[in-house]
Amino acid sequence: MADQIEDTPVYYEELYDLEREFEDVEVEIIRQQYILSKPLYAKRAELVAKIPKFWALVLEQAPVEIDEYIQPTDANVLYSHLTNLTVSRFSLEEDEKKGDPRNFLVRFEFSENEYFEDRVIEKKFWWRHSKDGFEGLVSEPVTIKWKEGKDLTEGLLDLAKAVYDEQLAAPKEAKKGKQTELTEKQKTLKKKISETGMGGVSFFCFFGYVGEIVSEEESKEVIAKENERRKKRQAGEKVKDEDEDMEDEEDLDDDEEDDELDIFPPGDVVAVTIADELWPNAIKYFTQAQDQDLDDVDFEDFEEDDEEEENSGNARPPKKHKRCASGCKH
Amino acid sequence: MADQIEDTPVYYEELYDLEREFEDVEVEIIRQQYILSKPLYAKRAELVAKIPKFWALVLEQAPVEIDEYIQPTDANVLYSHLTNLTVSRFSLEEDEKKGDPRNFLVRFEFSENEYFEDRVIEKKFWWRHSKDGFEGLVSEPVTIKWKEGKDLTEGLLDLAKAVYDEQLAAPKEAKKGKQTELTEKQKTLKKKISETGMGGVSFFCFFGYVGEIVSEEESKEVIAKENERRKKRQAGEKVKDEDEDMEDEEDLDDDEEDDELDIFPPGDVVAVTIADELWPNAIKYFTQAQDQDLDDVDFEDFEEDDEEEENSGNARPPKKHKRCASGCKH
Repeated sequence: MADQIEDTPVYYEELYDLEREFEDVEVEIIRQQYILSKPLYAKRAELVAKIPKFWALVLEQAPVEIDEYIQPTDANVLYSHLTNLTVSRFSLEEDEKKGDPRNFLVRFEFSENEYFEDRVIEKKFWWRHSKDGFEGLVSEPVTIKWKEGKDLTEGLLDLAKAVYDEQLAAPKEAKKGKQTELTEKQKTLKKKISETGMGGVSFFCFFGYVGEIVSEEESKEVIAKENERRKKRQAGEKVKDEDEDMEDEEDLDDDEEDDELDIFPPGDVVAVTIADELWPNAIKYFTQAQDQDLDDVDFEDFEEDDEEEENSGNARPPKKHKRCASGCKH
Repeated sequence: MADQIEDTPVYYEELYDLEREFEDVEVEIIRQQYILSKPLYAKRAELVAKIPKFWALVLEQAPVEIDEYIQPTDANVLYSHLTNLTVSRFSLEEDEKKGDPRNFLVRFEFSENEYFEDRVIEKKFWWRHSKDGFEGLVSEPVTIKWKEGKDLTEGLLDLAKAVYDEQLAAPKEAKKGKQTELTEKQKTLKKKISETGMGGVSFFCFFGYVGEIVSEEESKEVIAKENERRKKRQAGEKVKDEDEDMEDEEDLDDDEEDDELDIFPPGDVVAVTIADELWPNAIKYFTQAQDQDLDDVDFEDFEEDDEEEENSGNARPPKKHKRCASGCKH
């Protein structure tokens, strides 16, 4: 196997560049999807505004990637007070042709409740590339105006915001000096995170997800360099190893540190599941919820076949493979 | 909840129609993806032709939806003799603008081996709607020229073909008479399937997957009717309940029968995983395989960080979120 690898070094670069081209197509496809779906999302918003608890019911049916983080106390406020949920590709809204389709925001709207004052909680996610090799969704902590004694995150969200603001104020020195000493605030946060009980933190800690701190400028620079290298390789030029430009290997430890300080490390997975699964398929999830309810209702003149539950009622979608329009998600 | 349902009967139809429009967009997006990716797949085919065992290594990394069906004996022939794998959207190849993007074929190419004579095994999948409410991928059994005493499916594949041919020859009478009696061949097949050991059948039974027997004509008719109804509803006309046109409820039992006679019921899930996951992401899977191998190789002048394995070697993709170009698949 070692021989095989030594015999085919050039293919890694070619494969890598081709993979980038495949990713470029995936990004363009998100753009196309946005353009074609715009009128449908508008229609849907009008329709669901007339259906009470539409989004609460959809969220109740959410796939495990979201559901596993919803604690019982979270469920109380989410399922009883969520009045609307929106995913917006804000960069595309600004510039349909050139905006990055991978950036999006999630907007939760709530009715008055005993936990917090906010009627709207919004969180933005940006696709960024960092100098140390990171590529993915980053965000910033969003605080919530908790009512007295009702902070479901037990102070974690506020701490996350404080630590983030601190890092923004002094990032460069910290990284260059290979900071191993945490600040006081960071120590407090790290300690509090490690003290979290076995049940896990509140779903509302999702609003504290950061990922990595990467500015738009740094990201644009990194992407431009990558594209330049790719162009040169495709023109047959020899290009020096990307790794030589990357930060010292030891900086990779910073990522572990970052995770230690992130109050909700899987925030990007939850965000993407909301944006790419829950949001596009909301009607299917709502229908699922309705079907479950119908099972509990007795129809006098309708003999229900338990195994064919998906076909009970009026104008029901056909029983099989309703979610397989472009691929089974069984 | 029952009140809520009775108050909003009209929304089911509107939601259902809107969902159909969303699905129409998904289908157009598959078409777009095909058009944009064509040159990339051509480039990739040229490149991987130079890399020995590319597809065998990719298949070894396959997600669980495929991998769980590969038995040890299957692994022998698959990983040692698979020389090429291709997914073709044959309807789009015929007619890029109007062909159904959901139809595809999977083509496995093999080097000479001790199990079968075939060097190419191909299986087609069509997206069909049936009168009894089925919607999904259907196929037909593909037989394999097994060498003496080497039938990995132990006769199941041949039986599946025989039963299928029998059903094609006499389908209408069977369905109309609400056939409850199985033919001799069907009884033999059903018995053989139920005798399958705990380990499950060979992966090669995948080639026997049928799903449902639905002709192209029936499907076109059903889809045309659905579209007509949808148009009327959107024009504000009252349209009679779809269920009234559907076959008697009792025919739903036929589906259980079909499953009893299908030697590989999850065939559509495997097919879709190959077409929508393995095929587009083959380079990522190959890279994964290479990274695993590198961990086993000693580099004298390269200190390997076990936890950052994804960054070892030359021109490696950045360590994090390599598969998140359009959504994390963690």
